[in-house]
Amino acid sequence: MSDLKQQALDYHEHPRPGKISVEASKPCATQAELSLAYTPGVAEPVRAIAENPENAYRYTNKGNLVAVITDGTAILGLGNLGPLAAKPVMEGKGVLFKRFANIDVFDIEVQAPSVEQFIETVANIAPTFGGINLEDIAAPHCFAIEKALTERLDIPVFHDDQHGTAVIICAGLINAVHLQGKELDKVKIVCLGAGAAGIASMNLLIEMGARRENITLVDSKGVIHKGRSDLNEFKQQFAKETDQRTLLQAMTGADVFVGVSGPNLVSQDMVKAMAERPVVFALANPDPEILPKDAHAARDDLIMATGRSDFPNQVNNVLGFPFIFRGALDARARRITRPMLVAAARALAELAREPVPHEVLKAYNVDKLEFGKEYILPKPFDPRLIQRVPQAVAAAATK
Amino acid sequence: MSDLKQQALDYHEHPRPGKISVEASKPCATQAELSLAYTPGVAEPVRAIAENPENAYRYTNKGNLVAVITDGTAILGLGNLGPLAAKPVMEGKGVLFKRFANIDVFDIEVQAPSVEQFIETVANIAPTFGGINLEDIAAPHCFAIEKALTERLDIPVFHDDQHGTAVIICAGLINAVHLQGKELDKVKIVCLGAGAAGIASMNLLIEMGARRENITLVDSKGVIHKGRSDLNEFKQQFAKETDQRTLLQAMTGADVFVGVSGPNLVSQDMVKAMAERPVVFALANPDPEILPKDAHAARDDLIMATGRSDFPNQVNNVLGFPFIFRGALDARARRITRPMLVAAARALAELAREPVPHEVLKAYNVDKLEFGKEYILPKPFDPRLIQRVPQAVAAAATK
Repeated sequence: MSDLKQQALDYHEHPRPGKISVEASKPCATQAELSLAYTPGVAEPVRAIAENPENAYRYTNKGNLVAVITDGTAILGLGNLGPLAAKPVMEGKGVLFKRFANIDVFDIEVQAPSVEQFIETVANIAPTFGGINLEDIAAPHCFAIEKALTERLDIPVFHDDQHGTAVIICAGLINAVHLQGKELDKVKIVCLGAGAAGIASMNLLIEMGARRENITLVDSKGVIHKGRSDLNEFKQQFAKETDQRTLLQAMTGADVFVGVSGPNLVSQDMVKAMAERPVVFALANPDPEILPKDAHAARDDLIMATGRSDFPNQVNNVLGFPFIFRGALDARARRITRPMLVAAARALAELAREPVPHEVLKAYNVDKLEFGKEYILPKPFDPRLIQRVPQAVAAAATK
Repeated sequence: MSDLKQQALDYHEHPRPGKISVEASKPCATQAELSLAYTPGVAEPVRAIAENPENAYRYTNKGNLVAVITDGTAILGLGNLGPLAAKPVMEGKGVLFKRFANIDVFDIEVQAPSVEQFIETVANIAPTFGGINLEDIAAPHCFAIEKALTERLDIPVFHDDQHGTAVIICAGLINAVHLQGKELDKVKIVCLGAGAAGIASMNLLIEMGARRENITLVDSKGVIHKGRSDLNEFKQQFAKETDQRTLLQAMTGADVFVGVSGPNLVSQDMVKAMAERPVVFALANPDPEILPKDAHAARDDLIMATGRSDFPNQVNNVLGFPFIFRGALDARARRITRPMLVAAARALAELAREPVPHEVLKAYNVDKLEFGKEYILPKPFDPRLIQRVPQAVAAAATK
């Protein structure tokens, strides 16, 4: 086992297992304090909430508490390993929510016998929470789950692998397309991967100005076209009348490539076949569809992004979900709507165009970060994120 | 509104709503640390757990995480106010688990359309947790819920209102009966209240040596006897062949009274009618079945306990659940068995017979606490509790 792998196991095991703890946020050392926290004092907020459920936001942690919920069917890039194996990821997600937006998270791993039972279970425990973040749930059942829960519940329900990813991809693409001197409503886009992230990203991109007819979706069986009989309803919305069948055919002449699929699926020839000044987002993790060095060797006029922190332009969900939820919770939004997602993407894109504060340079140990081909998205440790993005999301929520 | 009530509301509201927060237990300030807590490092514990589910106890917080779960049907003495109104109590319970036994708690408020759906919901989220504490669930459906979950799950399931209460009552009764110079297997016992706490306490008392034929259960309709047709299966186990119908009749000549019912239901005449040197546990909260001053005015040879911290001999669940779960989690017990409950009750009873350390006297601002009529149970802030009770429970678990 590599040093890094052993280091990761040690980090999780010592000095105590796991990554989270639940703490009292109020003093509770003495009998007097406990008589406020528990009986007899606790009866007062109970009565107040029984009179008016809104008081739960006043007297309990509900309004700052998000459930990160999974069934473990699509853990990272590792696949369907079940809910228990997903727990380290869910705890980690909670750590990120806390670190970046001071949101408290209960990670909940659900072992349900059916999609319907999963939905019932989440709906039944929803009174506990101010919002629900669905995580690592496979397509296409993630779509049905999100839809059902959004309709049933009066708190925000958000599938990060869809909408969180979509927000960051769109923020990066807006800037990359702009830097390449092109217009979003004119570029030809190829998306490789038609799961949760691919479908949601293309839908949000259309919301932001891209044209559906300029988008070609490609899955493991090739181009998604009207002649195919194996398409679920979500893929069908992107099925085109076209003679294109292969990824190479789709990429020929394309301005933008978005890969949310698997390692090494894009060749240098495919990159060469793209239009002038292309944009290549190779987001498969940890091994992208094509490595930056190979893409740059193929041509020197492209803008490249990956999902990795060791290359420029990391498309990292942590730029989105903490701040989107912070905005939604602050605004007491009942839903996370498309306009809220658009607002988040635009706020991120705008932030990248602004001068970078010294403390950010210091945090990343670099001399400069300037808006351009190697800096199209803000850095996660940029303290302006928490000031800007939640505000933009909350403003869109209250409109 | 009284000052105390306003103080309780303020405590819950300011400076931020609620009483709990979720914190990272590992360093996660830098990009390097986050790459261990989240991708790519987190993939290692995921793989390890997928290979062997036991590794969840090694790499996640599961083994120290207890769900405090309610449906809000029996909140404190306030009744069925629904799950949301129960949230302050559940958060408070979590605070107590943390304060006394360093156990992390997720409070989960469940709005389920049926008892079956409640059971399904809890079973479905169980992979998240190392144990489940059911709370404030009304009888008789609390019995069915606990039974079903205990059979289905491989982690401890514990209904504190039954078994936690039973452990403290039994610990106190062992010492009170002893102090009165009587034997548990000979005393006549009357229990007023045939809900979760009453039934469980009498069952545990029998386990510890009391005789079923010496126990008379009384509910709101009077003595539980074989002639009644309105008894659920749990009450039926205590139905007697008897001519007694009223509480006064039952208490006449009884050695022990246990009240887990409502305020002011016991008169001075009833206390006077009891046998020599009786034991009166009047545990209704906040207003007991009879106030200590009234009972003591009726006769001077009794030992009295209540649920209140402002009278001697408080029967307080916090003496039990944190330490019982600590022992069960430390032993990785799959169940909380009767022998574990007996061990907890005996450990508590024994502790009260030992000299009290100076720091406990200081914490309670008293000059002395000596085993006797006004000190039959340890005090919650006694630091010996965490040293003794979990160990006794764990030893009983591994037998």
